[in-house]
Amino acid sequence: MTAREFRYGIVPPAQAATLSGRELLQGMIEGRFPAPPITQQLTFWLAEVGEGTAVFEGEPGAHLLNPMGIVHGGWTMTLIDSAAGCAAHTLLAPGVGYTTVETKVNFSRAIRADTGRVRAQARVVSKGRQVISAEAYVAAADGQVLAHGTSTLLVLQGAGNR
Amino acid sequence: MTAREFRYGIVPPAQAATLSGRELLQGMIEGRFPAPPITQQLTFWLAEVGEGTAVFEGEPGAHLLNPMGIVHGGWTMTLIDSAAGCAAHTLLAPGVGYTTVETKVNFSRAIRADTGRVRAQARVVSKGRQVISAEAYVAAADGQVLAHGTSTLLVLQGAGNR
Amino acid sequence: MTAREFRYGIVPPAQAATLSGRELLQGMIEGRFPAPPITQQLTFWLAEVGEGTAVFEGEPGAHLLNPMGIVHGGWTMTLIDSAAGCAAHTLLAPGVGYTTVETKVNFSRAIRADTGRVRAQARVVSKGRQVISAEAYVAAADGQVLAHGTSTLLVLQGAGNR
Amino acid sequence: MTAREFRYGIVPPAQAATLSGRELLQGMIEGRFPAPPITQQLTFWLAEVGEGTAVFEGEPGAHLLNPMGIVHGGWTMTLIDSAAGCAAHTLLAPGVGYTTVETKVNFSRAIRADTGRVRAQARVVSKGRQVISAEAYVAAADGQVLAHGTSTLLVLQGAGNR
Repeated sequence: MTAREFRYGIVPPAQAATLSGRELLQGMIEGRFPAPPITQQLTFWLAEVGEGTAVFEGEPGAHLLNPMGIVHGGWTMTLIDSAAGCAAHTLLAPGVGYTTVETKVNFSRAIRADTGRVRAQARVVSKGRQVISAEAYVAAADGQVLAHGTSTLLVLQGAGNR
Repeated sequence: MTAREFRYGIVPPAQAATLSGRELLQGMIEGRFPAPPITQQLTFWLAEVGEGTAVFEGEPGAHLLNPMGIVHGGWTMTLIDSAAGCAAHTLLAPGVGYTTVETKVNFSRAIRADTGRVRAQARVVSKGRQVISAEAYVAAADGQVLAHGTSTLLVLQGAGNR
Repeated sequence: MTAREFRYGIVPPAQAATLSGRELLQGMIEGRFPAPPITQQLTFWLAEVGEGTAVFEGEPGAHLLNPMGIVHGGWTMTLIDSAAGCAAHTLLAPGVGYTTVETKVNFSRAIRADTGRVRAQARVVSKGRQVISAEAYVAAADGQVLAHGTSTLLVLQGAGNR
Repeated sequence: MTAREFRYGIVPPAQAATLSGRELLQGMIEGRFPAPPITQQLTFWLAEVGEGTAVFEGEPGAHLLNPMGIVHGGWTMTLIDSAAGCAAHTLLAPGVGYTTVETKVNFSRAIRADTGRVRAQARVVSKGRQVISAEAYVAAADGQVLAHGTSTLLVLQGAGNR
């Protein structure tokens, strides 16, 4: 399966609000809901979700290079931010939203255009009533850690916004 | 000036090694060197450099949206990581490279497809022999802070790599 | 003024709840309220508060050393966390509390037992309804940056807790 | 075993340089080397080391309280910074030092004077030639996560300093 098989778009908020986070994300994986537009630009996609976990996969390439000729750290951060956010989202009931308050990423090894597909695996570390923290690791096919990071999420009850 | 006027590509490393960081970056601004490919995907560009400072501008749009219909935090992190890295790069002599060790970003306000052009302004906070830290702020046209963050860079003397 | 002139203790919550953050903190500076116990262990004290700003001072010493014989980074982090938290607290009305969600610190230069008094200056960068971020810089007497960091705070309305 | 049984001081650098990180740290646990002074102020101690791992224990108490009457986040950050740093140190050969470049901590649950002994368990996530990253989790006796964080360390070959 590659990123190119997906439809891109936004699930209407009124429809999304009827689903738990896990139902919504599972629907994206199965193609019943569109994948968000940013994933087309950056060739990555949601691959798996569980209870407090999420996995994204991404395909490096020449379109992602920074001035030094390696994949821009922003791509890696996008994978980590996505995985950590979705891991948290899997724990939220219908109508409950979240916003990412901050994300921090360590770049362990350079990712190159020909590194091959990478996986960003995330899990929730702590879930409070208002704050969730989740961590994510990006690894190459050989399992070596390429980057890792942590996100802090604010849970938004009802129509709440910070 | 918009992102669409740029040529995209990588400056050959042998050529880049003859230039100070500031000369290389100024050359990108002036169009004498190509802009890196990631900036085309993510509609942002280097706008200004100074001694230990750098400014990127970025154009939000529908191609950057996350599942909630707002601009993905990964885009904002890419701008901050780029601005902080280039601010550090302006202080490096020819033949001296750097790699970003980690970047951390706070998301203060949602960026929307119609937020309009944003600016990411960065400055070096501390420069040691091996480690540089720089901070960056992303602001809307009205000056309101949308996000802010810090990067830690490792200076690579000669052909060094970590 | 040194840390040794302070009374140490906790302001009773019922009394603290009648005061704005700034009133409470100004009362600590003026000695009308006790300084918190941790400040005695770690020889630091609140020196100034303003609208969204706070300054702590600290006295390094042999009691703060880590195994390498330099001041433990935990001391520096404590100053930054305190300054950032109090800068945010100055913006809160009576009865409104906060909790620090996360703090991240860059260590720029080693602090030694004989570095002399340092200052940690903090300011609020962004204030939302639920989330505040503040940054702080620790500097020596000569103004050189020794460390810097950012805290993210959650505002707790009424008796709320996360 | 409690913090009070330790001798406090600094291992002479010339002696420390003859030992691997793991030998030095194991010697502290066994009382053959003094514990660093900061651990007396903040009632915590090194409990275990392994290959790329370290565990600290700490005893909360009234001497650690912040103005809100809970244990200051600086204490928690000190445990995490210590555990992450020592986990990295266990991988270093004699004569090789390190310095912590940055530490980031999430505060998941309040620690109180009567929370009881906590454990900070750390492990190295990635080890490069110049940069090591390690993560640490602080847990109560019941295993609940109270805080977690990440440190980035710079390896110092010989007498190098950044």
